[in-house]
Amino acid sequence: MLVSELGEFGLIERFRKSIKTDASVIKGSGDDCAVIHFDQDKYLLFTCDMIVEGVDFLSDTKPELIGRKALAISISDIAACGGIPRYCLVSLGLPEKISVKTVDRIAAGIFNLAREFKVNIVGGDLSRANRLTIDISMLGFVEKKNLVLRSQAKEGDVIFVSGNLGGSISAKHLNFTPRLKEARFLVKNFKVNAMIDISDGLAQDLGHILEQSRVGAVVYQGLIPLSKKARNLEDALYTGEDFELLFSLSQDEAERLCAKRLNLFKPIGEITAKKYGLRLVDKRGREKTLQPKGFKHF
Amino acid sequence: MLVSELGEFGLIERFRKSIKTDASVIKGSGDDCAVIHFDQDKYLLFTCDMIVEGVDFLSDTKPELIGRKALAISISDIAACGGIPRYCLVSLGLPEKISVKTVDRIAAGIFNLAREFKVNIVGGDLSRANRLTIDISMLGFVEKKNLVLRSQAKEGDVIFVSGNLGGSISAKHLNFTPRLKEARFLVKNFKVNAMIDISDGLAQDLGHILEQSRVGAVVYQGLIPLSKKARNLEDALYTGEDFELLFSLSQDEAERLCAKRLNLFKPIGEITAKKYGLRLVDKRGREKTLQPKGFKHF
Repeated sequence: MLVSELGEFGLIERFRKSIKTDASVIKGSGDDCAVIHFDQDKYLLFTCDMIVEGVDFLSDTKPELIGRKALAISISDIAACGGIPRYCLVSLGLPEKISVKTVDRIAAGIFNLAREFKVNIVGGDLSRANRLTIDISMLGFVEKKNLVLRSQAKEGDVIFVSGNLGGSISAKHLNFTPRLKEARFLVKNFKVNAMIDISDGLAQDLGHILEQSRVGAVVYQGLIPLSKKARNLEDALYTGEDFELLFSLSQDEAERLCAKRLNLFKPIGEITAKKYGLRLVDKRGREKTLQPKGFKHF
Repeated sequence: MLVSELGEFGLIERFRKSIKTDASVIKGSGDDCAVIHFDQDKYLLFTCDMIVEGVDFLSDTKPELIGRKALAISISDIAACGGIPRYCLVSLGLPEKISVKTVDRIAAGIFNLAREFKVNIVGGDLSRANRLTIDISMLGFVEKKNLVLRSQAKEGDVIFVSGNLGGSISAKHLNFTPRLKEARFLVKNFKVNAMIDISDGLAQDLGHILEQSRVGAVVYQGLIPLSKKARNLEDALYTGEDFELLFSLSQDEAERLCAKRLNLFKPIGEITAKKYGLRLVDKRGREKTLQPKGFKHF
């Protein structure tokens, strides 16, 4: 059987079953970051993301944007757990014929975003590769009380997103600003039950929260904020790389958030019992089951 | 200018100059691991290594050995700083046509070595790639008093290696056992001034110690322990992936180590003043300058 037949998540699930971790690991694979014991007040967050030419960017993508994206997706993972990014390592797989100028521009994209988000670049590795490949691993911290996983969404919670969805492929996936400030505002001021960053599309990433939290959800089409670049609802539901936060709050907390009239966080639905699965209510009030599908590498 | 003209170390140096880190970073790029503030007694060690098909292994290499090597080189980096490996993330770039069975075997290679060295696999990332690519990032700890960098070799130190050198390309580079036990024995019982793992050849890796410590060295040909697979001295000096420890101790500490008659750590030379550079004394006592060259990706 080929990996392309088993599928990305089938393969990940296969691995997860055979991995055992010790008591210092609060949360291993299966969330935006691994969560590791640090001290009395804080956890370590640890995450990595690999981007590859031809998959995550094209050979004619501006090198600064390639570097920027490579770092931004890891910062977004740390943000989705409620934490603060601190240190990263950069593994670069470079084609033999790449120019120093191009590598300088990739590095500038990484370095500038690192400065902006106060991330220390503490090393890396350099290898020859067939296609340009960047893998960034990142360490961050989160106060124990501020940690948010995918697994604590509760029936009755209101589901929010932090911005417009869909159409990221036109540009946003390369120059989005990780929602770190927004995530920190949320965890410091509200009890966020579950959070994830939308990297593979609303339906699939909400599906991860539902699976990990053992709940269902209903989402209202009329409430999903579409980006100007989205061609249609499907773009928002099933295409990836919006890198907006998707999170759930209890009704009371949701009301507190809405009362702030921030015009940034939009309620889009509600967490339900698991048996109802994932449903979409269209603008005429008709309900249908939503497949938790989206971008997959395989 | 192409990266292949500037060279691997030219490129790394170029990056290092433009990277600034905050006070929590004890040592950024330029050693086997990054060293980060942890608590009163310990530092965090953070390292990553990328291996790519066609560079670090061949398309017909046994998948278990590919996985094993990917993890072993990071464990070796943690060992070279005197620490203990604890957590890792695995980024896998997989060709579209790879079979689940092959991936299972790669994973088995990683998982088995992780178990052996008590390393927690806490997550990873999966991407499509043109050629099989594995990047492992690893976190470890080292007691402050046991940290060893490349930069503290002192004039008069005796230089040791932990085993035979050369000819690793025939098999050892795929199934070496990281010298973790040996490194921990050394740092717990001796004051090790400088240490590195030999990944790119004795001459080049000793060159790193000399550069970082601002010293010179003389190595005696007759003392360099050649592996049975080494065809000649050049194999030991200039070919990589022996993954033995290369370290220096003061004369007194060296005598204490030799008195233990462990038959494992071999003295091969001495640290000198910087002005003498890197020299080799052959079996007839003739001295020549040694170029700190070895395996380079570019």
